[in-house]
Amino acid sequence: MTATVKADLSRYDQKLELILRASARIFAEKSYHSTSMRDISRATGVSLAGLYHYCKSKEELLFLIQDHCFGRVLQRLEERLQSESDPIARLRIFIDNHLSFFAANMAEMKVLSHEAESLGGDLHEHVSTRKRQYTRRARKIISEVQQAAVASQHPPRRNGQLKKNARPVDTTVATYALFGMMNWIYNWYDPRGKLSVSQLVDNITRLFLSGFLSRAEHATVQEGSEQAGMVNIWRSA
Amino acid sequence: MTATVKADLSRYDQKLELILRASARIFAEKSYHSTSMRDISRATGVSLAGLYHYCKSKEELLFLIQDHCFGRVLQRLEERLQSESDPIARLRIFIDNHLSFFAANMAEMKVLSHEAESLGGDLHEHVSTRKRQYTRRARKIISEVQQAAVASQHPPRRNGQLKKNARPVDTTVATYALFGMMNWIYNWYDPRGKLSVSQLVDNITRLFLSGFLSRAEHATVQEGSEQAGMVNIWRSA
Repeated sequence: MTATVKADLSRYDQKLELILRASARIFAEKSYHSTSMRDISRATGVSLAGLYHYCKSKEELLFLIQDHCFGRVLQRLEERLQSESDPIARLRIFIDNHLSFFAANMAEMKVLSHEAESLGGDLHEHVSTRKRQYTRRARKIISEVQQAAVASQHPPRRNGQLKKNARPVDTTVATYALFGMMNWIYNWYDPRGKLSVSQLVDNITRLFLSGFLSRAEHATVQEGSEQAGMVNIWRSA
Repeated sequence: MTATVKADLSRYDQKLELILRASARIFAEKSYHSTSMRDISRATGVSLAGLYHYCKSKEELLFLIQDHCFGRVLQRLEERLQSESDPIARLRIFIDNHLSFFAANMAEMKVLSHEAESLGGDLHEHVSTRKRQYTRRARKIISEVQQAAVASQHPPRRNGQLKKNARPVDTTVATYALFGMMNWIYNWYDPRGKLSVSQLVDNITRLFLSGFLSRAEHATVQEGSEQAGMVNIWRSA
């Protein structure tokens, strides 16, 4: 590849990134369905004909945003995990990687969350595969923390059993609870506000790790004391 | 009010609820903007003219869904809190109330989360006020748990200070982290699956309460060990 071709590619990539970034912002503001290519043309200053030089359709823009996000966050995670073997340190890296990435890309985060179903066919399948891969990675990191915690409790207590109240939190619930507390930030967090990204990471990490590793009795639910059950809003009026 | 007028009102309310419930399901499936009154007419079997007897516009339907949800969940919460004064028990009630309500109304939950910005003017302001009221209530319940925990730690440790690592989790982060882990369930939880609503409530309660009340050192972030910071997806390529 000659230097000129490289420079052209780079200019092309830069322009595409500008278009994707602006599209993510507009999709986040007014939803994918309410956004037209004309809106994107207006926001980027790129003509309609110019836009179609970079993507075949509005759907391809949405796909590129989603694919790029999952690709980048997963790639950075793998790079950072390589040098660390301690399970708790690996979980910290996962949380830090996800939050620091999405705190800097909140429009993209909202688009990932709200427009997951707006892609169809192969594009949808491709992004879903990436997302499953990322979720599996998180779940494995969380499982390993749990296994290490159980291992460090050996030898077992005198009666040979964990106390009933000391049961660990379900790994599936823990995985999605962690994604929930991290992904919800686009609803409230302002990266330019008084809580810095590193403070956000610190607080979420402590909240999740303590909760996940704790066996404290105060935190157990007394059976029968709660009114858990299905409460259908419409039929209860 | 005569018995006949009452019966008519009730029939009216039942029909309106049927329309709102079907609308929430369609808005959740294909987004508010992509849904037409014709879609709602088709799903409910109510003619277009009939629909306009129950609401002035599609926007009013969206408003009624959101207003009804926040109204009901807040009303049930206040009723259940009346008989309880212990801060931890009150937090359990809050979590149970929110999750059991929304596990039974997941389409409504998705609409509340995705279509908050689709209302304009007074309707938007009205729902936002409800939402702020509900968030303030949650924050107060969480603060009271923290205050009770601090009070129970008196007298202070020998050196008169809490250890640096023993600092509590920020109340704002804790409040939104709890909403995040609860509200995210519409992305993964199946109320008809093997994890019952009461098991979901139990796991989320233990995860949050242990995390929030714990002062365990393993869960603190060692300063300087993390790479927290802003990582802009597009400019880092």
